Amino acid sequence: MTVFLVGAGPGDPGLITARGLDLIRACDVLVYDQLVAAELVAEAPVDAIPIGRESLQQEEISRLLVLYGQRGLDVVRLKGGDPFVFGRGGEEALALAEAGVPFEVVPGVSSLSAVPASAGIPVTHRGVSSQVTILNGQGRLDFDALARAPGTLVFFMGLGRLAEITNELLAHGLDPSTPAAVIANGTTPDREVAVAPIAEIAEAAAGLQSPALIVIGDVVSLSERIAAPRGTLAAV
Amino acid sequence: MTVFLVGAGPGDPGLITARGLDLIRACDVLVYDQLVAAELVAEAPVDAIPIGRESLQQEEISRLLVLYGQRGLDVVRLKGGDPFVFGRGGEEALALAEAGVPFEVVPGVSSLSAVPASAGIPVTHRGVSSQVTILNGQGRLDFDALARAPGTLVFFMGLGRLAEITNELLAHGLDPSTPAAVIANGTTPDREVAVAPIAEIAEAAAGLQSPALIVIGDVVSLSERIAAPRGTLAAV
Repeated sequence: MTVFLVGAGPGDPGLITARGLDLIRACDVLVYDQLVAAELVAEAPVDAIPIGRESLQQEEISRLLVLYGQRGLDVVRLKGGDPFVFGRGGEEALALAEAGVPFEVVPGVSSLSAVPASAGIPVTHRGVSSQVTILNGQGRLDFDALARAPGTLVFFMGLGRLAEITNELLAHGLDPSTPAAVIANGTTPDREVAVAPIAEIAEAAAGLQSPALIVIGDVVSLSERIAAPRGTLAAV
Repeated sequence: MTVFLVGAGPGDPGLITARGLDLIRACDVLVYDQLVAAELVAEAPVDAIPIGRESLQQEEISRLLVLYGQRGLDVVRLKGGDPFVFGRGGEEALALAEAGVPFEVVPGVSSLSAVPASAGIPVTHRGVSSQVTILNGQGRLDFDALARAPGTLVFFMGLGRLAEITNELLAHGLDPSTPAAVIANGTTPDREVAVAPIAEIAEAAAGLQSPALIVIGDVVSLSERIAAPRGTLAAV
């Protein structure tokens, strides 16, 4: 009798919330993004209507959610990460609100900390970083302010502009030795990580593919110490 | 045979991850923070050793995790929100790594977006905000930079300094009409929300108690439109 905007988490299907998984298992209609794990789509009831969003524009999705919601069906709109962190969940929520369709937002684990965590990087750390700036790598960026921002910078959707982003930050005065990382397919078995000083990260990450997160800041230097034990886990 | 640093999520027990819940249900030892929902602590096996951390210093917790881990027990260290977003998970991870104890980080839903979501506020929104700055309200703050930062500001642990934070931002040029919100006990039934222009938010939030999140930016103005349907949900 309502539409649920559910965050699927950062890739690993085990990182969906317990409530999100319960809702998928009971839904009538499942509208899901391309990046959502196939294991989660498979959790829907066999008679649920599955709608992959690949070929749909954002406006069409919002319209579909309204139409199914108005029919009184339980609709799960499953989005990668968190619906409200670069997830465009706000647009869908507004469309539902304007149409008078009841809805609920079920947050998800955002890539912003889970993907760095999968590479042994805490985005905050006592004495190292108490500020995190999250950015859309495809948007307008104030490089002058970012080069001077304390703490950690995290860019979503920035891999295509990695060289430009790092060059601009360096040109605006960021220390060339500042540690940086690019993590592709974080939290999944296909994960790939490049770690280097920011002056060299574009070259180090040359072979990586989207989706990828860029992390810049001193916390990246912790990855060597924190990521190590997992590498030896199989041998214990 | 390992220590799991697990994020419990932002308050609502349904917002723990599926994997986190599975690990609690199978653990030998459960070390949990005061803010973690009692429903999650109750999910541990009846013969698991429960350790509430109220009376323990951070160093003592890290030491306990190492000791239990060295015994070969499955230890779940359950922390509010996400272990790596103001969760001090990095310190525990380093202690375990240095002691050679295998561990794994299981991310959680951070309050940073889930708590604003519970008040109808998306921290990013197309055309409104494509940048989020996350801050420790008890730390050193560069108010000059923050007053000019685009997008959304989110302060953790800032309620005790709310008047100072808002006064400093205004003194450094932030528009007094900028929308602001304080959300206490977000995602739980005890949730309380104050929304006002930043010049008036300290007064509007006077009765609220910690834990609380402060959100400043134009996205707050979406809350009126997005939060509305949930209020009418019971009547549908």
